[in-house]
Amino acid sequence: MRLVVIIAEYDPFHKGHEALVKAVRAAGATHVAAVMSGSFVQRGSAACLSKWARTRQALSCGVDLVAELPLPWAVSGAETFARGGVALANALNADVLAFGSECGDAKQLWRAAKLLQSPQMGQKLRENMKAGIQFATARERAAAFLTGEETAALLKQPNNILGIEYCKALQQQKCSMECFTVKRQGAGHGSMEESDFPSATRIRAQIQSGSGWEASLPSGSAAVVRQELAAGHTPASLQRVERAVLYRLRVMSPMEYKTLPDLSEGLENRLYAVAHTAGSLEELYDMVKTKRYSHARLRRLVLAAFLGLRAGDSAGTPPYLKILGFGPKGREVLARAAQKGVLPLLTHASDSRKLDSRGQNVVELENRATDIWALCCPKPAPAGLDRTAGILVLEKGCV
Amino acid sequence: MRLVVIIAEYDPFHKGHEALVKAVRAAGATHVAAVMSGSFVQRGSAACLSKWARTRQALSCGVDLVAELPLPWAVSGAETFARGGVALANALNADVLAFGSECGDAKQLWRAAKLLQSPQMGQKLRENMKAGIQFATARERAAAFLTGEETAALLKQPNNILGIEYCKALQQQKCSMECFTVKRQGAGHGSMEESDFPSATRIRAQIQSGSGWEASLPSGSAAVVRQELAAGHTPASLQRVERAVLYRLRVMSPMEYKTLPDLSEGLENRLYAVAHTAGSLEELYDMVKTKRYSHARLRRLVLAAFLGLRAGDSAGTPPYLKILGFGPKGREVLARAAQKGVLPLLTHASDSRKLDSRGQNVVELENRATDIWALCCPKPAPAGLDRTAGILVLEKGCV
Repeated sequence: MRLVVIIAEYDPFHKGHEALVKAVRAAGATHVAAVMSGSFVQRGSAACLSKWARTRQALSCGVDLVAELPLPWAVSGAETFARGGVALANALNADVLAFGSECGDAKQLWRAAKLLQSPQMGQKLRENMKAGIQFATARERAAAFLTGEETAALLKQPNNILGIEYCKALQQQKCSMECFTVKRQGAGHGSMEESDFPSATRIRAQIQSGSGWEASLPSGSAAVVRQELAAGHTPASLQRVERAVLYRLRVMSPMEYKTLPDLSEGLENRLYAVAHTAGSLEELYDMVKTKRYSHARLRRLVLAAFLGLRAGDSAGTPPYLKILGFGPKGREVLARAAQKGVLPLLTHASDSRKLDSRGQNVVELENRATDIWALCCPKPAPAGLDRTAGILVLEKGCV
Repeated sequence: MRLVVIIAEYDPFHKGHEALVKAVRAAGATHVAAVMSGSFVQRGSAACLSKWARTRQALSCGVDLVAELPLPWAVSGAETFARGGVALANALNADVLAFGSECGDAKQLWRAAKLLQSPQMGQKLRENMKAGIQFATARERAAAFLTGEETAALLKQPNNILGIEYCKALQQQKCSMECFTVKRQGAGHGSMEESDFPSATRIRAQIQSGSGWEASLPSGSAAVVRQELAAGHTPASLQRVERAVLYRLRVMSPMEYKTLPDLSEGLENRLYAVAHTAGSLEELYDMVKTKRYSHARLRRLVLAAFLGLRAGDSAGTPPYLKILGFGPKGREVLARAAQKGVLPLLTHASDSRKLDSRGQNVVELENRATDIWALCCPKPAPAGLDRTAGILVLEKGCV
C-alpha cells in the first residue's frame, strides 16, 4: 500500500481537486485519503455544503477515505491549520502528504520551512513586527533580508504559504512522510476570474447565484450539489445568521472577549467597541481592520466568538481521528490507521465517550458548531447532525 | 394637583389611548403620567417602535410624563406586570390609577381582586390546576364555583384580567390611590377586525404592510411613525432576529435552561428538546405548546432566554423610577415624585451609578435588551442607545 493524504476543504470538490487526486494516482498512490474541514472553514465562514455532502463528493471522485480536521484547527490561521492536518495525516499513517502550490516544487518549500524555523528568522521577524507591520509582510521582508528575493517571492502566494506550513509541521512533528506538490492550475486562490479551473470562491458565488457552477465540478460532485440544492441544505452562509453573530458580539462580556483565540495588542478592545456600533458584518470588518490585522484573521476571530471557541482550544494537535466516510478501498486505509494507533479512532458518535476530557471538549465544540451551521442553511436544519449522521460508507465507487 | 397614572405599552399610541387620556382629563385630572414598557413588551416580543419614539407619541398626545417599566416586569405575565406598574405609579405619587377594561366598572374588578386573594380561592385554584387545567381556565372555574358566573365572566377578558391584577397589586402594596376605568371602545385586545378604534395588533400589522395605519393614530403619533419609518427604525420585529433566537436556544446549556423564569413541571426540558429541532419560531411554539402553557407564556419564556433573563429578576417591585421624557407640565409631576422619594429617580444614564447592586443589575439587563432590540430594526441600530439617549423634554405640547 502507498497511502497519500491530502489536507483540504472541498467546499465544493471541483476539477482542480480531482486533478490533484489523479496526479497522485499517476505518481504511484494506491490509496488516497483526505483530511477535511468540518462545518466551518479557514476563511472564517460556514462551509457552503455540509461536511457529509462534501464527503460524498470526495468519495465519488476518487478519494478512498475522508477524516475530519476538528473545528479549532480548521478555523485557525495557516500554521495551526497545518499542524492539525499533518498530525491527522500522520495518524492515518500516510506515506506521502500531497498538496497544490503556486510554485509546484516541494524542495523549495521544504527549504523555506527550515528557514522560517531558524533563530535568525525569528529575530528578524520580531524586529519587523515591532515596527507595526502585518505578520505576513513582516515575514516576507525578513525572508528577503536573510535569503534573497526567491524565498520572499514564495511567501507572497497563499498555497505556497500553506505548503511551507505543512513542511514546517512535518519537520516539527518529526514525520517521515514525503512531500508531493503539484503546480496549481487555473485561477488563483480566492480569485473570481474565469478559467477551466476556477477558484472555489468563484464556484461558491455561482452556486449562490444559481448557475454556471456545473461545468467546474466533476459529475459525481455536481450531482451532490444538485441534491443538496433541491433539499434546501446548500448554499449555507454566515450571511443568513448575520444578526445572530452581531447578537453574540453584543451580549458577550469584556471578560469573554479576553478569552478569544489569537488576540494581540488589544485587538479584543477594538473588536468590543466596534461590535457595539456596526450594523452588519462587512461594516464590522471594515471598522476593525488595521494594517496589522488581515481581513481573514478578523473573520476567524468573529467566528470564534460566535462558535464559543477560546484561546487554547487549538493548542497542540487534535485528540482523535474521526472518520466521516470511506469508499470500497477505504477499509484498508482504516485498518492501517487502527494498526498504527497514534490516536483514538472515532467511527461512530458514541465512540467519543471513550475520549479523555480534552477529547470530549473538542467533540462538544464540534457538535455545537454543527448545530449552529444548521442555522446557516437556506432552511434551518435540526441540531444534533453530528450525533445522528452515521459514517458514510460507499460500497461502489460512485454516489 | 390631581395626578392620574396610566400603565401602558403604547406600541403604537393610538386613538383608543388618546380617548383614555381625554376621559381622565374630563374626570378631573390636572396631570397625566404613563408607566410604559421599554424595548420589549408583554406579548413576548420586540416593541414595534423604540421606547423613545413611543414617548414622543405619548407626550405629543396629551401625556405629561413617561416613566419606564423595567424589562423584567414588562415582559412578565399579568400579575408581575401589574405589580411593577402599580409600584411605579405609587412612586410617582399618583392620586388615581386609570386603565381601560371590557366591563368598565372599577367596583366589580376590585371585588374580583379581593376574591382572588382569598384562601378559598387559592385552594380551589390548586385543585383545578392539579387536574391539569391551564392556569387561566382553572382560575375562571374556581371563581365560578365560589361566586357564580358574574366574576367568572370578568376573568374571560384580557383587559379585565389586567385591571383585576392592578386592583390586587394596589391592595397588596397598600396603595391609597383610586381606581378609574373606562369601558374599552372598538376592537378587542389582539383583534384584527376593522373598527374606528382598531387594536394595536391590527395597527402594527398595517405598519408592517405599509398602509392603513394613519387613520387610527392621532396626528402627533402618526407623525412619529412617519419619521421612524423614514429613518428605518420601525417596524422592529423579533422575526428579523429569528435565527439569532434559535442560535441562543441551541447554545444554552441544560443548566442555563433551569435558571429561566416562570418554569413549571419540566417545561425547560420540553423547550430544550424542541429548540434543537425547530427550524423557525412558529414551529417551536407550536411544538412546545400544551394545554397547560399558553402561547404568550411560551413567547415570554423564549424571549427571557434570548435576553438573558433569569428567575428572580422580576421578584418584588422595580428598584428605581426611570424617566423617559416629559412635556411642559411634566416638571411638576417630577417634582412631586422626587418629594415623595419612594424610589431613586433616574433622569440621566449616569444616575444608575448611585443604585445598589440589584438596581444596577436591572439597568444592565435593560441596556443589554435595548442593544438586542436595536438588531430587530429594519436597519440594525448601534448598541448603547440607553446610555446615549437623553431624557426627552418637550417644551411645547406637540412634536
